[in-house]
Parts: sequence; structure tokens; C-alpha cells
Amino acid sequence: MNISHIEHLGIAVENLEESIKYYEGVLGLKCYAVEEVVDQKVKTAFFMVGSTKIELLESTSPDGPIGKFIEKKGPGMHHLAFAVKDTDEALKTAEERGVQLIDKVSRKGAEGLSIGFLHPKSTHGVLTELCSKK
Amino acid sequence: MNISHIEHLGIAVENLEESIKYYEGVLGLKCYAVEEVVDQKVKTAFFMVGSTKIELLESTSPDGPIGKFIEKKGPGMHHLAFAVKDTDEALKTAEERGVQLIDKVSRKGAEGLSIGFLHPKSTHGVLTELCSKK
Repeated sequence: MNISHIEHLGIAVENLEESIKYYEGVLGLKCYAVEEVVDQKVKTAFFMVGSTKIELLESTSPDGPIGKFIEKKGPGMHHLAFAVKDTDEALKTAEERGVQLIDKVSRKGAEGLSIGFLHPKSTHGVLTELCSKK
Repeated sequence: MNISHIEHLGIAVENLEESIKYYEGVLGLKCYAVEEVVDQKVKTAFFMVGSTKIELLESTSPDGPIGKFIEKKGPGMHHLAFAVKDTDEALKTAEERGVQLIDKVSRKGAEGLSIGFLHPKSTHGVLTELCSKK
């Protein structure tokens, strides 16, 4: 599996602009990118904290994954992403170890990373992402 | 505020033993400590991932904070802890910047750290902890 660190933490928010104000104005972090991911129906904002990114996610539609999450659970931490050496190898290893996968093979995520998700049913409730540069 | 990195991520689980099996057996992380915190009504297990700890939390009572959290939202990520230079100074700064505090002054947490919590009403839904060695 070769997890080196937490690559990022995805946080579902109701209002991106207000949330950026909190992360910058209160916590003193610096937003270094804002991006819309049309097929995921989200607007995102990124902050670096040590070696981990915080990714704020605002839904652009109530029927998108973040919109549904907030409707069910309220705003808060949404997914946890580990940096691995090779996402496809790590997905294969996870499946061999009995984990239900959302992505059988990696796909391209933000910042050109190869990403893949494990199903929260197999991860004790945490929607878990694996990412690598490869 | 002086946040250097994410000190730990607290994850509420229904069964600590089964969850440790997943974090060790599937993700390949190593549990380095298991501890019961009687006044918080939890059993905890710690893993190091890069410079961040993962803290699994199993409730020892349905009326404890983790028991209530799981009843309301299900198992999953519970709180986010930032490492700061001085928890008391950071709490004071947060309050001056309009944040509602759970802890007005720091108290002693796991591993002898000074800790204090910000209220999720003021942090866009994320129960946020500040920790320092001081």
C-alpha cells in the first residue's frame, strides 16, 4: 500500500466564500487555488497545512455528491486522501484485502494526480481516497 | 495562530478492534498506542501517517460524546486537530476573531499536549481542536 502521508482532507461546506474567510481570517491559512470541477458539481478551494492540503468543497447543485452529503449529514469532513506510491497497485491490494472499491482503476483527479476511492462501507465509515503522482 | 501542520484527525468508530484490523491489515499503518480516556468515555488507538496522527475513537458508553456522534451521523471523521505554537494564545486569537470556544483556556489532552476546542458552529461544521506542547 505504501502510504506516505495524508495528501488531503476534503471538507464539505455550504458557502465557499464564507468558509475561505474563516480558514484565512481566523486560522491564518492561505488559499492558493480555487477551481470548479463541473462533472463533480463542486467548487473547490485549496490550502496547504504542513504536508497536507485542505480541500473545501461547495456543491454547485443539490443533486451532486456534496449536496447530498450536506443534506444527510450537514457540513463537515467529507473524505480522507492518502498519498500512495501507485494508486492502481494500491487499489488492487485493497481489493485483494477484501475492500469494496468505488474505482476499480485510477482516474485523473485535481492537480493531475491519479486517484481512486474505497467504499466507506469497507473503511469503517470514512470515504477514503488514494492518490499518487503516477 | 501559527498553525504548523495537522496534529491529528479523530475518527469515530463502532468497534475499535475491527477498525485497527482495517488500518493495519488493509492500509498497512501501525497502531503504536491504545488508551482508555475514562472521562471522555472512549477507547482510542493511534497511528502515525507522515507528520499526522490518526486517532480512532470507540465510545465506551452511548451517552458519551462519540456515542452521541455515531447515533446522529454514523461512524466517520469526528474532529480535526491543528498543531499551534501556544494553545492559549491561539484560543485567545480565535475568540478575538469571533469564534465561539468550547474551551476558554487550554486543558491537558493525550500525550501531555495542551488542547482546546473551537465550536463547530463557528468553524463551518468541523469540530476543531488546537494543540501545542506548551
